[in-house]
Amino acid sequence: MATDVSTIIATDTAQVKAPVTVPSQTEQKPKSKVRSKYRHVAALHATTRPSCLSHESPETPSFLGFRNLMVLTIIVMNLRLVIENAKKYGLLITLTSNIHAVDVRWGALLYVLTPIHLFAAYLIERVAMEHAKGAVGRRKKSDAGMKKSPETENELKDFLNTWWYIAVAHTVNATLALGITSAVVWFCIRNPGIGMVSELHAIIVWLKTCSYAFTNRDLRHAMLHPGGPESAIPLIYGNCPYPKNITLSNLCYFWWAPTLVYQPYYPRTEKIRWGFFFKRLGETAALCTFIWLTCAQYAEPLLRNSLEGMAVFDLPSIAERLMKLSTISLIVWLAGFFAVFQSFLNALAEIMRFGDREFYGPWWNSTSLKMYWSTWNKPVYHFMRRHVYSPLVGRGWSSGAASIWVFVFSGFLHELAVGIPSHSLLGVAFLGMMAQLPLIFATEPLSRMGDVGGKVIGNCIFWINFVFVGQPLAAMIYFFSWQAKYGLLSENRPNP
Amino acid sequence: MATDVSTIIATDTAQVKAPVTVPSQTEQKPKSKVRSKYRHVAALHATTRPSCLSHESPETPSFLGFRNLMVLTIIVMNLRLVIENAKKYGLLITLTSNIHAVDVRWGALLYVLTPIHLFAAYLIERVAMEHAKGAVGRRKKSDAGMKKSPETENELKDFLNTWWYIAVAHTVNATLALGITSAVVWFCIRNPGIGMVSELHAIIVWLKTCSYAFTNRDLRHAMLHPGGPESAIPLIYGNCPYPKNITLSNLCYFWWAPTLVYQPYYPRTEKIRWGFFFKRLGETAALCTFIWLTCAQYAEPLLRNSLEGMAVFDLPSIAERLMKLSTISLIVWLAGFFAVFQSFLNALAEIMRFGDREFYGPWWNSTSLKMYWSTWNKPVYHFMRRHVYSPLVGRGWSSGAASIWVFVFSGFLHELAVGIPSHSLLGVAFLGMMAQLPLIFATEPLSRMGDVGGKVIGNCIFWINFVFVGQPLAAMIYFFSWQAKYGLLSENRPNP
Repeated sequence: MATDVSTIIATDTAQVKAPVTVPSQTEQKPKSKVRSKYRHVAALHATTRPSCLSHESPETPSFLGFRNLMVLTIIVMNLRLVIENAKKYGLLITLTSNIHAVDVRWGALLYVLTPIHLFAAYLIERVAMEHAKGAVGRRKKSDAGMKKSPETENELKDFLNTWWYIAVAHTVNATLALGITSAVVWFCIRNPGIGMVSELHAIIVWLKTCSYAFTNRDLRHAMLHPGGPESAIPLIYGNCPYPKNITLSNLCYFWWAPTLVYQPYYPRTEKIRWGFFFKRLGETAALCTFIWLTCAQYAEPLLRNSLEGMAVFDLPSIAERLMKLSTISLIVWLAGFFAVFQSFLNALAEIMRFGDREFYGPWWNSTSLKMYWSTWNKPVYHFMRRHVYSPLVGRGWSSGAASIWVFVFSGFLHELAVGIPSHSLLGVAFLGMMAQLPLIFATEPLSRMGDVGGKVIGNCIFWINFVFVGQPLAAMIYFFSWQAKYGLLSENRPNP
Repeated sequence: MATDVSTIIATDTAQVKAPVTVPSQTEQKPKSKVRSKYRHVAALHATTRPSCLSHESPETPSFLGFRNLMVLTIIVMNLRLVIENAKKYGLLITLTSNIHAVDVRWGALLYVLTPIHLFAAYLIERVAMEHAKGAVGRRKKSDAGMKKSPETENELKDFLNTWWYIAVAHTVNATLALGITSAVVWFCIRNPGIGMVSELHAIIVWLKTCSYAFTNRDLRHAMLHPGGPESAIPLIYGNCPYPKNITLSNLCYFWWAPTLVYQPYYPRTEKIRWGFFFKRLGETAALCTFIWLTCAQYAEPLLRNSLEGMAVFDLPSIAERLMKLSTISLIVWLAGFFAVFQSFLNALAEIMRFGDREFYGPWWNSTSLKMYWSTWNKPVYHFMRRHVYSPLVGRGWSSGAASIWVFVFSGFLHELAVGIPSHSLLGVAFLGMMAQLPLIFATEPLSRMGDVGGKVIGNCIFWINFVFVGQPLAAMIYFFSWQAKYGLLSENRPNP
């Protein structure tokens, strides 16, 4: 330490002394090494300089230290809330759960039975394939030796007729997948957690069934009517061309693959890295435990305390609860996001040797709402783009109209995923998704502004919408509604 | 908006499609403009890619969005505390103050009388100057026609004898400046705020008196014994060489100049920019009001609530209060720092046409405690360096020992500034300054580490020491001590 102090002092003095060397005596010498014996006279104020925070300062100082301060402040503020919570409630986490055995049984039954609809879709596709193969065989016979003709009116009609029956079969099958689960969850499963998992599982199976049907329909048509570049099929599918992909093993791979978009062939990795797999699995387990503890100890008392304010619609009280809840819901959401999209899906992809791991983009940097919605959940985004947006644009819809329809459809799915398990189809989740449209419209110009300011504002609007309004408000409303029906605010507690 | 969606979709598709164009048909064309009519078959999973948060990802994504999230989180968390506070206490700010008239009268009297000691120092210097002038005159007579001889034993003795009397006079004068104020504040001023302002004013006058005496002593010696480069006087002082600077106007300039370090001549600005001056003055007023409101509404109830825990030494309760207080004390400190060092001192410098505005450096980026202590308060740092550290090193002290002595001296001043007005000389402020020494020793290697990690850790240690331990803990202890003596915890409430 000793040497540094002197080094710094020496440097400082050299700086200050530069313009004030004594004239004649030091002229021949290199910059004065001889220090004045008068220690009390150093001219510390030797030049005119502005303060570094003033506007006239030649360069703005770095504010990196304040970033560290923010991190520490957030840690300490939350640590304080942890102490406050412990003093107020003690330990709320108990190993005795209030999950009813009957809920678990229904959930397990749904988990086992729902994938059956995927197999039903497979059977439908098999029938369609046989029909198409027959058509190709007939055509080959009749066209033998003649040059290939373009698709005729009759052929198109025939294809559409067949597709009509197949489409009806697929629709009935897919609707049953979603409908049966929704009905069971609504009428038989009281616990919102188990209900939500079952409902999300049904939605996933439903989306996979739809993708399977749509993709095979196009592939079948392409096989029946090979043509110019406008009927191009991605080269990668050459590894497994159309009729060959209608096999049980191909379907089973799609069933477990971490995607909602059916492709006959996916890029695969060389081998399963078991170390990677178990690390991701461990992360998933650890994060799930963390989420459970956080919810039990911090979110639940908070939500309980909000009921009173909600019941009498006391706005300051609601706002205060909302803000306190926002931190917890943010932490839970971030942990949940990481658990599902990074840890779980990567583990699943590793075990399936699924190559494309882009399950999300860096959505946290979103400068517009559109950027967020197209990066945070790539599997759903891919589904929407391939099976909703793109076909609509292909039919001549404007891209704006197609986007609106995507959000309407997505709002419907959100409402289903939240409203059914909480037994309150309030339309809040649906309206929340609809509210994204004006926000997208508002933030889009910001994200394309040249300067950083606009992007920062866009990013802040995204976070406010996401963290401080969207998540906790929806959680509070559905919690209130559930409690009003079955919980603390009601005596109507049915035995499910 | 419509065009953007399609642009993005097109870009995405181009990316994905790149490796999967149909072979023969598109060879001659520029990258396929023709889009497949099959919208449901796009190969969205066309390549093997890692998730962007995985270790194998080629580049780590930016986390800039999380910085914005932190800012918003801190704002919202504090906004919540504001609502909670309003619900709990209502409006605590009242215009009827509990400041006693007698405190104000004593404070005003001290404010007017303390600078008299500066004028006493001026008179002492005048006597010393006359004496020196006489010596020069005598020497000129005796040395007439002879070549200049080096300083003789006798001359040195004579100078030191004279300096002895002058030093005693200065010491008595300066000690009285500090002693009288301290006694008045301790015995007559009950309000800690007024007491602190008076005490700080006395310390400033004391430091200015010391600097005036030390600097003029060296300048006088240099005039009596002109010599080689080792007795060089800064060139800038040539504008006002030694005996000419002992004037009343020169002293008055030093009295009001925003520095604690006396120089016969300071760099000056061309003219007073009145716009700049009034802006800085407005800032000072606004920030002072802000600090007052914050303290009354947020800090005081918090401190009051901490008394109970302090009295029974309930550690979790003290930690919780400390953490809650840390945010407020940080805000108050930052506002106070800006009010004093940026706004007030710049306003004062502008009106005095004082050129050197470097009242602070970017201390918030400090990677070590030493960096913080040498940048946050440049006026005091300059004084310590010129009049304590540098002379000690000149006498052969090691720089480490000189640094320790600087902190001992600074600790004494801190204790004086805090202990006297709060009527509790607990030694906490002194020990707080002493505790900086091991921390400086510990953080110094971190700040000189090559990588960013060490600097971040150094910066975090600085912030923790500064924000979460130092300030609020000291505030709580002195508040508790004051309340124990005069306030809520005591019935002994003397009429001052």
